[in-house]
Amino acid sequence: MSSPATPPLPLREDLEGLEPYGAPQLDVPVRLNVNENPYPPSDAVVADIARAVEEAARGLNRYPDRDAPELRAALADYLAVESGVRVDPSLVWAANGSNEVMVQLLQAFGGPGRTVVGFAPTYSMYHEYARDTNTRWVQGQRGDRFALDLDEVERVLRAERPSVVLLASPNNPTGTSLEAPDLRRVLDLARDLGPQVAGTRRAAVVVVDEAYGEFRREGVPSALELLAGNPHLVVSRTMSKAFGMAGLRLGYLATAREIVDALMLVRLPYHLSATTQATALAALRHREELMAQIAGLRGERDRLAAWLRGRGLEVADSDANFVLFGTFADRRAVFHALLDRGVLIRVVGPEGWLRVSVGTPEEMEAFRVALDDVAARQSGGAL
Amino acid sequence: MSSPATPPLPLREDLEGLEPYGAPQLDVPVRLNVNENPYPPSDAVVADIARAVEEAARGLNRYPDRDAPELRAALADYLAVESGVRVDPSLVWAANGSNEVMVQLLQAFGGPGRTVVGFAPTYSMYHEYARDTNTRWVQGQRGDRFALDLDEVERVLRAERPSVVLLASPNNPTGTSLEAPDLRRVLDLARDLGPQVAGTRRAAVVVVDEAYGEFRREGVPSALELLAGNPHLVVSRTMSKAFGMAGLRLGYLATAREIVDALMLVRLPYHLSATTQATALAALRHREELMAQIAGLRGERDRLAAWLRGRGLEVADSDANFVLFGTFADRRAVFHALLDRGVLIRVVGPEGWLRVSVGTPEEMEAFRVALDDVAARQSGGAL
Repeated sequence: MSSPATPPLPLREDLEGLEPYGAPQLDVPVRLNVNENPYPPSDAVVADIARAVEEAARGLNRYPDRDAPELRAALADYLAVESGVRVDPSLVWAANGSNEVMVQLLQAFGGPGRTVVGFAPTYSMYHEYARDTNTRWVQGQRGDRFALDLDEVERVLRAERPSVVLLASPNNPTGTSLEAPDLRRVLDLARDLGPQVAGTRRAAVVVVDEAYGEFRREGVPSALELLAGNPHLVVSRTMSKAFGMAGLRLGYLATAREIVDALMLVRLPYHLSATTQATALAALRHREELMAQIAGLRGERDRLAAWLRGRGLEVADSDANFVLFGTFADRRAVFHALLDRGVLIRVVGPEGWLRVSVGTPEEMEAFRVALDDVAARQSGGAL
Repeated sequence: MSSPATPPLPLREDLEGLEPYGAPQLDVPVRLNVNENPYPPSDAVVADIARAVEEAARGLNRYPDRDAPELRAALADYLAVESGVRVDPSLVWAANGSNEVMVQLLQAFGGPGRTVVGFAPTYSMYHEYARDTNTRWVQGQRGDRFALDLDEVERVLRAERPSVVLLASPNNPTGTSLEAPDLRRVLDLARDLGPQVAGTRRAAVVVVDEAYGEFRREGVPSALELLAGNPHLVVSRTMSKAFGMAGLRLGYLATAREIVDALMLVRLPYHLSATTQATALAALRHREELMAQIAGLRGERDRLAAWLRGRGLEVADSDANFVLFGTFADRRAVFHALLDRGVLIRVVGPEGWLRVSVGTPEEMEAFRVALDDVAARQSGGAL
């Protein structure tokens, strides 16, 4: 009864030998590794979510509303309050996490024969989105203090004629924001240096990933302000970070009509479940409460950066809820020494640097104590 | 201050001029168009879901468990009860709806330079999954009474050397099941007639889409029974249909280790939200109750098929919760005449045929009355 041997399966060549993405999901007292918001939803938010899902559950035998108009309107309202920029709800688009948003963008505008560019150091998932959509990934380099180097941007766009330019602002893992004049310049370059498609010159789509946008410092503008007049601009956001809803998986974007229309061609039908739509709507009803935490986290971030600098460390300017600091001759040793003390951070970014998320004041104190202890045991206190 | 004109955007050429997928989401008294389960969850199920989501909501600031082991174990238990086949939980994989499961499979084993084959008439989304993953879609033809034609299967596999063979059983929109000997033959052909990758012959991956599997008639086996000995077989299921959870978007599959490992490379991290995992787990705790409805729906389906045949219509043998019937000289006229009477069905499948989902006894009666009325007004009673 034994079957003949089955030959190996046709796994794609570019996946051979890879390991799945994986920030460690460790059960550690102080988790400062994946830039989560440390504050769980309040009892009022939890109760409202439970009520909303209870109501949605009564109709769960039916498919969800495919276009989620109510949720997109609530997200547009939130963006208006948060940034002062009002976007028509039909120009807001939502999916299961920013990563699904990004993949949809690359499915519509990337793909075989197309190129997406980014500027390193930047978010490590971008090249995976490119790979998942068979889009070529080309990475230029950031300049001094992790800022965009506009000459490098122009050089890369001129050489590569990308369909999509992917920029995180604040950038992950550096925490640094795009300067507004720099973004304007990138938009102009993208208008002129996109690909030829079917014999016609196209603009490159510029995606500004503002996953951490709400944490930006006073006076730092959102790219949302540039949507008017730039129909090739996409600004993506998420409810995972400032909004404290990483478990919900709700990413969204604001853009122009032509881009939303394109996304509707590639989105999987009914991609947003009824429970996701109901939960997100319930959370958005409590936006004042959830936004109030942001000021506290920003303050904690600035105190952390100052403390690290006070210890003689380099710290990238952060507009996010994390801080990149260093540099260490052996950053893995520091990471493991902190983990031994119950504090989980992240080995990411350029060699020598480490990233730590901003937690509660208590978690930050635990981090500082642990780092001081690590320093004290290594080379007599110097990090 | 006016910006220079922005050139058109680089939408992928294969998306130009397309319309988004769209079964109409109309507010009609009797909706029999998308094969939903007509029975909403009971109060007990709703309450359990609300409790489960309330608990999950307390930790929504954290990312969900990336690998959903508890949910996969519950799905494995359910499969064992439903089909008698026990699968190790680690060999069960879940995603946001069967459509995400299918896209992940094609991301891992399809893509540029690869071919996926199906046999028409079959589910209209398959070619969209292929397009979304840049996989070539080749469609062979089914034979008599919509059964697989094994000569045609061999011919297509020999000619195309596909990476993936995609078969729905019961098939949508025909409702017909794969015969077990036919599936065994397809598995043997797929073992021998897969593609060359990196100079090595590979087996084609055979995906049996059992979205409607629970509705199969007594004595019709599930493809799950063939998992042992066929490491190139994937059997996909969904909670949308028999389980009555279309709004939840939970698709899953059972397969071999090599295939799960491949899916973990292409899945987006944290693709299953904490609320989705909690809701699915709560629903699965009520599996006896939800499965009890299936017998009633099967009976209603068989009565519907007999009634249609009694009216002189052709009806495809159905193992699903819908029935394909015809043929009509002008099927769109019949569709619209039914819609005018408050009954929404679906224009899908080969020319001349229509598909109607199995609803409650009251909905089926409304359908029969409406169809009789349409018949009475057309050509004196003959359909």
